[in-house]
Amino acid sequence: MTESMIIVNSLEELFYVRRFLDAPAGLVPTMGFLHSGHISLVQQARRECKSVIVSIFVNPKQFGPQEDLANYPRNLERDLQLLEAADADIVWMPTSEMMYPADYQTWVDVEKLTQPLEGSMRPGHFRGVTTVVSKLFNATRPDKAYFGQKDAQQAAVIRQMTRDLSYPIEIVVCPTQRETDGLAMSSRNSYLNPEQRQAAPVLYRGLCAAKTAFEQGENNAVRLRQIVTDAINGEPQARLQYISCADYKTLQELERVDVKALLSLAVFIGKTRLIDNIALE
Amino acid sequence: MTESMIIVNSLEELFYVRRFLDAPAGLVPTMGFLHSGHISLVQQARRECKSVIVSIFVNPKQFGPQEDLANYPRNLERDLQLLEAADADIVWMPTSEMMYPADYQTWVDVEKLTQPLEGSMRPGHFRGVTTVVSKLFNATRPDKAYFGQKDAQQAAVIRQMTRDLSYPIEIVVCPTQRETDGLAMSSRNSYLNPEQRQAAPVLYRGLCAAKTAFEQGENNAVRLRQIVTDAINGEPQARLQYISCADYKTLQELERVDVKALLSLAVFIGKTRLIDNIALE
Repeated sequence: MTESMIIVNSLEELFYVRRFLDAPAGLVPTMGFLHSGHISLVQQARRECKSVIVSIFVNPKQFGPQEDLANYPRNLERDLQLLEAADADIVWMPTSEMMYPADYQTWVDVEKLTQPLEGSMRPGHFRGVTTVVSKLFNATRPDKAYFGQKDAQQAAVIRQMTRDLSYPIEIVVCPTQRETDGLAMSSRNSYLNPEQRQAAPVLYRGLCAAKTAFEQGENNAVRLRQIVTDAINGEPQARLQYISCADYKTLQELERVDVKALLSLAVFIGKTRLIDNIALE
Repeated sequence: MTESMIIVNSLEELFYVRRFLDAPAGLVPTMGFLHSGHISLVQQARRECKSVIVSIFVNPKQFGPQEDLANYPRNLERDLQLLEAADADIVWMPTSEMMYPADYQTWVDVEKLTQPLEGSMRPGHFRGVTTVVSKLFNATRPDKAYFGQKDAQQAAVIRQMTRDLSYPIEIVVCPTQRETDGLAMSSRNSYLNPEQRQAAPVLYRGLCAAKTAFEQGENNAVRLRQIVTDAINGEPQARLQYISCADYKTLQELERVDVKALLSLAVFIGKTRLIDNIALE
């Protein structure tokens, strides 16, 4: 499409405009408050597809009761400007009432891959993610869908779901975009005060220290985790929630890094929970 | 399409040929061993759609461990002749290994509507049904999908799933096809010996007796169920598993039929389990 971006809300509007998109169509699912990470996904979709659909939906089903649904940052006007500049074709912004009408009762569950890491810390989170992504896939029928490597487990879970549920969709996982000091871009970074923001690069610094040790021959997973733990503990603003060194494919914890591994962690900086990860291979 | 019917097995073949189908495309999911009930679905799809896809897959996930998966009747050659005659465009016949590869771990669950009736008698059955139908929907991306009224709860569950998961698919439920003596057509009728076959119309006879009473003013659900129960108990070959008189929409049992109701039952004739239903409105 070469015309200007079309913004739709209801499913009926989406189904109508979807029919006029040229194939292949790329989908970029987002929760809005877009940053360069999101835009890099839109740009990759733009390069690889004839049509680009972006969804903006803060999905209540993937937030726990104690989590930040109510405070999740929003800036719709800016999001739409960024998407127009990135040449999206359709922006779909459903409401919660459209996505979860009265008497809603259907769930998509991925069993094993959702158990460790984020799944163990955020019960119900991935059930909300797989259910809403399945809905986004069904409603938009894309040929490709784009996700960020920052949410590595999410990407693995979506890949598994896509294969298991026979979707004719290619899952494309794009590199984590980082601020110049290494902090992984995230909408949640906006929660940080200046002092916390200054402390936040410790996640990536810790991951990089472990990766350097790995590249220098350290493949004991306990010691690699300890390197990250020490870095986090050295930052008074930071509190480690978990550090994992797991098989990249199964997400099961390793004793020794003799296959491709995912080194990942969750850290609280004040009340803000940040995650990051790096591959060891 | 006007060319002859295309038969595919793998997902890759299906995805390839699917692209050449004209819209709207209709899907008729079956477990094979086709009878006039299935063919009536194909014919309705043929009338309403430009393309007709039929799937044949005996889905192991919807059979309980004590059920008849191993003995489920098959006659592929005859099925394909019938589908060719009914002018299907694509017949998709995946294997279990294609549908559930190693490390399969994803499920689609509809919560409330799957609890009563068949769901209470066949634990896990509807989870298998909704998961496989979701896979069939994803792989074939139809505009309409056709189901038989004989499996009334299944049709209600699929409708709910389709709405909840935002599928742009119209669910078409077609009338139960019956033998001349009233027996609802079912692949499982082939299990009946001649004596059992003669006894089997008692399900429909019981339902009709209750419907007649309803039309003559009886709206007490207890008494309507009793009419059916008496009919079944009057047939020595038959053993009633359940009789339900429920709200047509919610499938919750009624005390009084003051909304559209579904009168449904399951009966064992020997070791063969038959179901049937009728609407009261």
